Amino acid sequence: MPMHLNTRDAHFEAEFRALLGMKREEAEDVDQAVAAIIADVRSRGDAALVDLTARFDRLTLTSGTLAFSKAEIAAEIARVSPEDRAALELAADRIRAYHARQKPADESWTDATGATLGWRWTAVSAAGLYVPGGLASYPSSVLMNAIPARVAGVERLVIACPTPGGAVNPLVLLAAELAGVDAVYRIGGAQAIAALAYGTETISPVDKITGPGNAYVAAAKRRVFGRVGIDMIAGPSEVLVIAGAGQDPDWIALDLLSQAEHDESAQAILITPDEALAHAVAAAVAKRLESLERRAIAGASWANNGAIILVRDLDEAAALSNRIAPEHLEILTDDPEALGPMCIHAGAIFLGAFTPEAIGDYVGGPNHVLPTARSARFSSGLSVLDFMKRTTIARMTPDALAAIGPSAERLATSESLQAHGLSVRARLDRLNRQG
Amino acid sequence: MPMHLNTRDAHFEAEFRALLGMKREEAEDVDQAVAAIIADVRSRGDAALVDLTARFDRLTLTSGTLAFSKAEIAAEIARVSPEDRAALELAADRIRAYHARQKPADESWTDATGATLGWRWTAVSAAGLYVPGGLASYPSSVLMNAIPARVAGVERLVIACPTPGGAVNPLVLLAAELAGVDAVYRIGGAQAIAALAYGTETISPVDKITGPGNAYVAAAKRRVFGRVGIDMIAGPSEVLVIAGAGQDPDWIALDLLSQAEHDESAQAILITPDEALAHAVAAAVAKRLESLERRAIAGASWANNGAIILVRDLDEAAALSNRIAPEHLEILTDDPEALGPMCIHAGAIFLGAFTPEAIGDYVGGPNHVLPTARSARFSSGLSVLDFMKRTTIARMTPDALAAIGPSAERLATSESLQAHGLSVRARLDRLNRQG
Repeated sequence: MPMHLNTRDAHFEAEFRALLGMKREEAEDVDQAVAAIIADVRSRGDAALVDLTARFDRLTLTSGTLAFSKAEIAAEIARVSPEDRAALELAADRIRAYHARQKPADESWTDATGATLGWRWTAVSAAGLYVPGGLASYPSSVLMNAIPARVAGVERLVIACPTPGGAVNPLVLLAAELAGVDAVYRIGGAQAIAALAYGTETISPVDKITGPGNAYVAAAKRRVFGRVGIDMIAGPSEVLVIAGAGQDPDWIALDLLSQAEHDESAQAILITPDEALAHAVAAAVAKRLESLERRAIAGASWANNGAIILVRDLDEAAALSNRIAPEHLEILTDDPEALGPMCIHAGAIFLGAFTPEAIGDYVGGPNHVLPTARSARFSSGLSVLDFMKRTTIARMTPDALAAIGPSAERLATSESLQAHGLSVRARLDRLNRQG
Repeated sequence: MPMHLNTRDAHFEAEFRALLGMKREEAEDVDQAVAAIIADVRSRGDAALVDLTARFDRLTLTSGTLAFSKAEIAAEIARVSPEDRAALELAADRIRAYHARQKPADESWTDATGATLGWRWTAVSAAGLYVPGGLASYPSSVLMNAIPARVAGVERLVIACPTPGGAVNPLVLLAAELAGVDAVYRIGGAQAIAALAYGTETISPVDKITGPGNAYVAAAKRRVFGRVGIDMIAGPSEVLVIAGAGQDPDWIALDLLSQAEHDESAQAILITPDEALAHAVAAAVAKRLESLERRAIAGASWANNGAIILVRDLDEAAALSNRIAPEHLEILTDDPEALGPMCIHAGAIFLGAFTPEAIGDYVGGPNHVLPTARSARFSSGLSVLDFMKRTTIARMTPDALAAIGPSAERLATSESLQAHGLSVRARLDRLNRQG
């Protein structure tokens, strides 16, 4: 049974806080094992990758076969059906079009003192994308990570994807090709992250690593952070549906279950002012669960982490949504554009009954890598900006330095940083002598 | 003696790699102590803050005196000289003007299918700024952290600053006032970070914590990351000066020493194609060091971490600069605008002989919180964006869903996510029945 809350209840606040504080995931303590794996890859390079891949993925590689060859990729891709290819191409095109609009602009201006100021955006030179193996090997995630990197202008873009027993998802390789990935290495786990961060004889190091992974991958990303940039460590996925009267309970049930079927620790929450709808959705979820392929997972997620919250009105729904700061927020009301702007903490918002969250997972255009675990309060989904960085630029003229230099000198003195002050003073003295 | 390298030498590459790999800072292992402090603040709140502040800062506080009162702040600020105030105001105005241009734009558009797509930027609701006590209590850093937060639209902005023995820098309080900070708490160390992240009876939790600190502060920020957002953990500061023939060796020496005087682990590097200039700078550094107040620190930094690299030409200088990815890059050449665009990895660039790096520390306008330790390859200096987050927005019309929904359904099926597919299919079926 999911939690049932009602804002009119006296104990609502305590229950809502319990929901917010719910710990849905136990962190596995794999840090020592990961540290050893990283040290091994740093010291033995390719040889360590070959050994670790034999042990963990039951696959015998050599330096020469760490990467898929062009022929291997072509052969795998040839197995993809035309329908799957068309769907993936449509997704890639839409994701590319959306992210192309995110490219930031350089700026440069001259202020009243004559100083030229501004900034310049440049791409990270090389990026590595981790793609999990097995069941969680999602071609859509390849597109969502690789396309923003390419749009940013990353020169070298590689994938690490474990292939347990040699098995690979042909759609992953097709997605890599559609996104313009330069190489796909059949390595996984902490050893793959170490190879991407530090490099080996065969694999050049990258500057940024993104992409989801298991506890070993997450721990390895934390460890190499600083040496390279990483994306956020994603937690279990979440959806919040705000629904008004008159919405279809079956559609809402399916949207909740789309989240729940990912993972037992996923969380699906419905907030509605309509008690009848709340009951209808609960019934529809139970009904749909009966025939769902992943009913064990989805059922456990819904029972343990799900919630239905009855509110007085939609304003209250928006206020609660801001406290939850959901990864995905669906607004199914008569006028979703009116409520949307009141929801200020959310990774992605889906407006109206014809925008199920699953659209955003695949073909909507926006990124599906989004902040989880209430981190939408302070962070954003993956974007082109994650593969770029900004260099600030300043140029003083003699006049500009004469105008603002004395203040810099004064502040340097107040901070007891004498050389800072002298570096300005030496120039001002020259200008004064010339003046 | 700083390292002397020459790209014409056979062993240059090995020496340059040694320079790049130089470990300038030993990480203190304070993680266990920090974990205990955080747990104490989480369980005992204000009482823990009072006890820890008595122990570490020799200062007796109560819940009521954790924050400076308005009267205390006014009394401290009254001690600031008019000249210092004017300098700080000029700095604040220039930093505000620069950062105001960083505010990102929301976007919304309708694509060919009729889908409305876009994104919306919103501010983090509450931010906490850590300001070190004692010698490293820099008013300029208060401005550099607090002003971007205010420009972003952060509603509640507070400072934590330890006041050992009760001592506070009046300029820090003035900077806080000029930047529009809402409260200043006289707490420091890991306990301050814990209070900002988790809250106590007196201190409401924030969503984002920025600002420099010692090993305890850095370890605490790492630990609360995820619960709140943090800025990057800054390493020792660095400057790279690229200088062409004809530049003033004394100015360059002072710029190198501005960096070196921060910290023994700071790094100052000169790259020049002009051997005579290289010698003249080395001599000028030695001469300036004789009379510098912080000559012990600056001398150790220059001797242990400094370097002079002789190159064939300025193109080679830019290429090496990109491998170093310096926090600060000064380009002192006849045509710095020509070389600037070739330098693609740098936190901040200072163009021309009249733009000493110290200008950027105080009054230039750009932020002085910048990526260290080669992380300019993948990250940027502090900006307004660090206090904002982006929510992506999508709205499908029935026509849009009919156009792209089948591809989403197909991809969901290929990823074995049945409910995802059904959530789209249920809507498409309705449309087909209606159509």
